[in-house]
Amino acid sequence: MSDLPAEFALIARHFRPLAGPGALDLGDDAAVVAPPPGRELVIAADAMVAGVHFLPDDPPDLIGRKLLRTNLSDLAAMGAEPFGYLMTVSVPRGTPDGWFAGFAAGLDADQREFGIALLGGDTTSTPGPVSLSLTVLGHVAPGAALRRVGAQPGHALYVSGTIGDAALGLLALRGEVADADGVLADRYRLPRPRLALGRRLHGIAAACMDVSDGLVQDAGHLCRAGGLGCTILAAELPLSAAARRVGRLETCLTGGDDYELLFAVPPEREAALADAPVTRIGHFHAGPARVAVLGPDGAPMPLAGGGWSHFG
Amino acid sequence: MSDLPAEFALIARHFRPLAGPGALDLGDDAAVVAPPPGRELVIAADAMVAGVHFLPDDPPDLIGRKLLRTNLSDLAAMGAEPFGYLMTVSVPRGTPDGWFAGFAAGLDADQREFGIALLGGDTTSTPGPVSLSLTVLGHVAPGAALRRVGAQPGHALYVSGTIGDAALGLLALRGEVADADGVLADRYRLPRPRLALGRRLHGIAAACMDVSDGLVQDAGHLCRAGGLGCTILAAELPLSAAARRVGRLETCLTGGDDYELLFAVPPEREAALADAPVTRIGHFHAGPARVAVLGPDGAPMPLAGGGWSHFG
Repeated sequence: MSDLPAEFALIARHFRPLAGPGALDLGDDAAVVAPPPGRELVIAADAMVAGVHFLPDDPPDLIGRKLLRTNLSDLAAMGAEPFGYLMTVSVPRGTPDGWFAGFAAGLDADQREFGIALLGGDTTSTPGPVSLSLTVLGHVAPGAALRRVGAQPGHALYVSGTIGDAALGLLALRGEVADADGVLADRYRLPRPRLALGRRLHGIAAACMDVSDGLVQDAGHLCRAGGLGCTILAAELPLSAAARRVGRLETCLTGGDDYELLFAVPPEREAALADAPVTRIGHFHAGPARVAVLGPDGAPMPLAGGGWSHFG
Repeated sequence: MSDLPAEFALIARHFRPLAGPGALDLGDDAAVVAPPPGRELVIAADAMVAGVHFLPDDPPDLIGRKLLRTNLSDLAAMGAEPFGYLMTVSVPRGTPDGWFAGFAAGLDADQREFGIALLGGDTTSTPGPVSLSLTVLGHVAPGAALRRVGAQPGHALYVSGTIGDAALGLLALRGEVADADGVLADRYRLPRPRLALGRRLHGIAAACMDVSDGLVQDAGHLCRAGGLGCTILAAELPLSAAARRVGRLETCLTGGDDYELLFAVPPEREAALADAPVTRIGHFHAGPARVAVLGPDGAPMPLAGGGWSHFG
């Protein structure tokens, strides 16, 4: 279904060097892959559209890396080990070759970093904005995939890394907050999928997901999957030095795109996380599937955007 | 990475009923699938954009079915057995609920017909046209996948079904050719992936692909993969009664979207196809990777669009 005049040359030049063994040089109708024997396949797909999920003039290498990393974050949330991906790329006619070169260079860098390879896909034209879709494949021991369902009353709520940087980074790119050293913008443009942590959480986390829609909204997903409530203590939020300087606590609670892991831990397993880059920010309890946030003063915080009132 | 306000309700209403066992009710970050033991995974991805691959006002159920079937055709070309798919859907804000209902109804009908289920995906907004991407998963016995490489001099070139109907159907939808009973338009809108034939070709076809870009162009792919030439006899083309009435032989040779299987068969295996819905249309021979077409009069046919001169 190719419709770009130079599609074949374009694929050969930019995408074939990214192809893994199962990709058959991207020259067949499909890829053939033998997953490791005795492992289950874990597979996720996300789309990104220019003007919605990234800024149209973002550097193309960062667009490629963000596309790959947001999908890898879904595998991290399941505790899976990634091994490859398929991708469809729809671009306006006349997109310069340099854009593809940059996009492929970003993918290449991340393929090396994460030990994965391109398996197949499609390139088409579009009369609209650049539209990207990526399907990532990984594997996990049978029955061991981390799930959103599983939190119980009394479990602690943990989050990895720092929270809110990506949402503040988007505001910084729009000139709305200060970001002198570019740390926040970098967190928005380049997610860090927590793959090693995800694998480590087997046998520790009772439920897990990645934070893409915002901490409070995603905690609501864990609550609804488990049929219970949770309380987040805003004073415990892991904030970067840059986020502390900006000081928009509500944005950090509700902003998206962090791609950290958010997970439930039974009390008896918390000691196993003593040396992990994670923070206990609250706990689950019986009650309606609702997220309550207690502010630094201990009083319930009303949240305007994406807050707990959406989940009553 | 959801950004449609009603995304969760929309997924629950229209897409969750399509979800298979590994999809975890579309409620987790990824799907978990155990491919049949001892089989290799076969996986392909294609994108479709409104205004490029389908007409914006095409019935949404047919859009869903075409998206699924073009991908299933890639598995047919490899001789694989499909079992599931992931899909990303980017639509303009304000897309009516009825569009999603129709789109999902089309997918549901084809899931039943082909014995597959939805495994996961993503729904986002776009400021541009509807952009769809689908990744289809299947399996095959180890080493048995049909490939584009493998044709040898002396092999016959076969094609399944009839050729050219889809390209004529697009012309009919544009009012450029007659299609009184709608047979041609139906072939354009609703591909028939030749899955049963693809599986039957194990041990018979030496090389195989599906016809998506046009018969002559796709025969060129088989030539280049095998490093040899082929000659197509236009008089042998399997044309439907409707295509014969229209009489545009060149469109049938070069038009796309047929999704029939095009394959090479060693002479000693041709007898195995005696009762199959396939037609011998030419043969492979030594020489440069080039497709020659001999017209009904036996003389070489020059082809303006997508013809053999592009493959010298």
